[in-house]
Amino acid sequence: MRAVGVDLGATNARAALVDVETGKIVAETKTPWPDTASGRSPETVASLVGEAVRTIDPKKERSGVGIGFAGMLRGWSGVVVIAPNFGWREVDFRPMLRAQVGESCEVYNDLNAIAYGEAVYGGARGFDDVVCVYVGTGVGGGIVANGRLYAGSTHLAGEIGHTKVVPAGRLCGCGMRGCLEAYTSGRNIQKRAQEELREGERSLAVELAGGSIDDVHAGVLDEAARRGDVYAGRLWEEVSTLLGMALANIVTTLNPSRLVMGGGVWNGAPELRRRSIARLLELVNQPSREGFEVVDTTLGDTAGMLGAAALIAGWPGGKK
Amino acid sequence: MRAVGVDLGATNARAALVDVETGKIVAETKTPWPDTASGRSPETVASLVGEAVRTIDPKKERSGVGIGFAGMLRGWSGVVVIAPNFGWREVDFRPMLRAQVGESCEVYNDLNAIAYGEAVYGGARGFDDVVCVYVGTGVGGGIVANGRLYAGSTHLAGEIGHTKVVPAGRLCGCGMRGCLEAYTSGRNIQKRAQEELREGERSLAVELAGGSIDDVHAGVLDEAARRGDVYAGRLWEEVSTLLGMALANIVTTLNPSRLVMGGGVWNGAPELRRRSIARLLELVNQPSREGFEVVDTTLGDTAGMLGAAALIAGWPGGKK
Repeated sequence: MRAVGVDLGATNARAALVDVETGKIVAETKTPWPDTASGRSPETVASLVGEAVRTIDPKKERSGVGIGFAGMLRGWSGVVVIAPNFGWREVDFRPMLRAQVGESCEVYNDLNAIAYGEAVYGGARGFDDVVCVYVGTGVGGGIVANGRLYAGSTHLAGEIGHTKVVPAGRLCGCGMRGCLEAYTSGRNIQKRAQEELREGERSLAVELAGGSIDDVHAGVLDEAARRGDVYAGRLWEEVSTLLGMALANIVTTLNPSRLVMGGGVWNGAPELRRRSIARLLELVNQPSREGFEVVDTTLGDTAGMLGAAALIAGWPGGKK
Repeated sequence: MRAVGVDLGATNARAALVDVETGKIVAETKTPWPDTASGRSPETVASLVGEAVRTIDPKKERSGVGIGFAGMLRGWSGVVVIAPNFGWREVDFRPMLRAQVGESCEVYNDLNAIAYGEAVYGGARGFDDVVCVYVGTGVGGGIVANGRLYAGSTHLAGEIGHTKVVPAGRLCGCGMRGCLEAYTSGRNIQKRAQEELREGERSLAVELAGGSIDDVHAGVLDEAARRGDVYAGRLWEEVSTLLGMALANIVTTLNPSRLVMGGGVWNGAPELRRRSIARLLELVNQPSREGFEVVDTTLGDTAGMLGAAALIAGWPGGKK
């Protein structure tokens, strides 16, 4: 059985025809958003999705088209409540898509599609109760419960980045204070470290970044922490404690068999990762460690397309 | 359709024959545990369950027997990993039960059964994505996801009482530090307030308790806080902030339509409850407030039996 998975990203749309039994990509395409005022309007996006699907699946082999994108959805109505990357509010998007690619078409939150992809084909293949968390530019996640995607009532389940870790703490991009993301996303780590270094903190990370504070990022801070740098070590102690605690809390709450971890910061900062896993295992409800493991993502940036294809195909049996 | 729900509590076993379409209890019975060395052995408990089921359902009208109790289970294998109230470890309990009441018999964690009962018949009737949290002697919860019980891989999903709210904070009964339960359970609130009052803190709560520090509990602290008592107000500020944050985090993580709240402390401390809900709504990921409400439990101490009966009957369609 084949299905199409689509990933509507920040800069382009990608689509793949997927053999859902194996998770193999049979054909794929990538289309950048047109550089015009209406380049990301719902009508333009739906039309580009239609073109992409016709390109990779001219013989209509698909059982359906699953579409993942960064947006908040009203239940399973297909209505987009808000999609900041596209500037949309209250868009009844699914009918536009169905007019292009047929009735078997559904929209999913991007991290939900990614989590489902990793649970079905990737790092947690074969497990029914899975949490997937990405620590990258932002921090987000998705949940697979009883072998099915658990999207939540407005498809915001898994938003671990906006759980609070410090009451009235650092300001987050969402406008609130004390979110995990405000402490652990790549963007916020970089911003904070650069501020503190400009204010007089000293760190080997500056030298590792080529001498300029402007070029300090999570990767060089990690290297500095590994080499015993005091500033980076102290920062990593705080960040890993908060990340480890938030991950422990999601594992305590959800009691999954596998926690799949990915994202640019997670993959590019091995010392932070080592410390965070240690804190997670210390802080998690100890009985929940039975049968539990932390594993890596294995699908890279194809996870969302693969997950969306599996979701629309209802693969494997019983999953939605 | 009828099914039997059983609640194996700390002092007795209760069983009810339930009309699962309506949630009405048709017959019920209560049996105290025998006061003997083997009074709570797996064999004795299974045998008492058998007797209770034969008493309330002599005509075998039941589609099955669902049993809720405070224990950690190994997936859906029916093996009890540990049940502290009964002193059990690694007990293959389901075959003993099935020998007594027939093959259609399953064991559930007590808070999972309660959460399912409240989602199907109680405070969140008709909603598919529900979290239920009890704040009483201890703090625990259960999750209904996509209209089905989400038990987690060892039936410990919903253990919000052991999420960490203060890194390296107060000691919890579980042996760890900083658990929500260490700050907000009735037992821990009482213990802490009595300690602080003995160490010299002064509060109206002592007078409200009849003059003895030994009789201070969450209820009189709540009354004192409402009357403007400084000590109780400060304590409630801390407790409500931590409880509100933990509840906000479970709602941010799970994006439910309804959070069902119950338990002795929650019901007996209206000021704490008012402040905790206010903090929850402030601290939750704001987009997750769309369509979300906090509601009360409505089934009292029958929730577990009703939930276990519905679970074994597979009611309503699609739920497990």
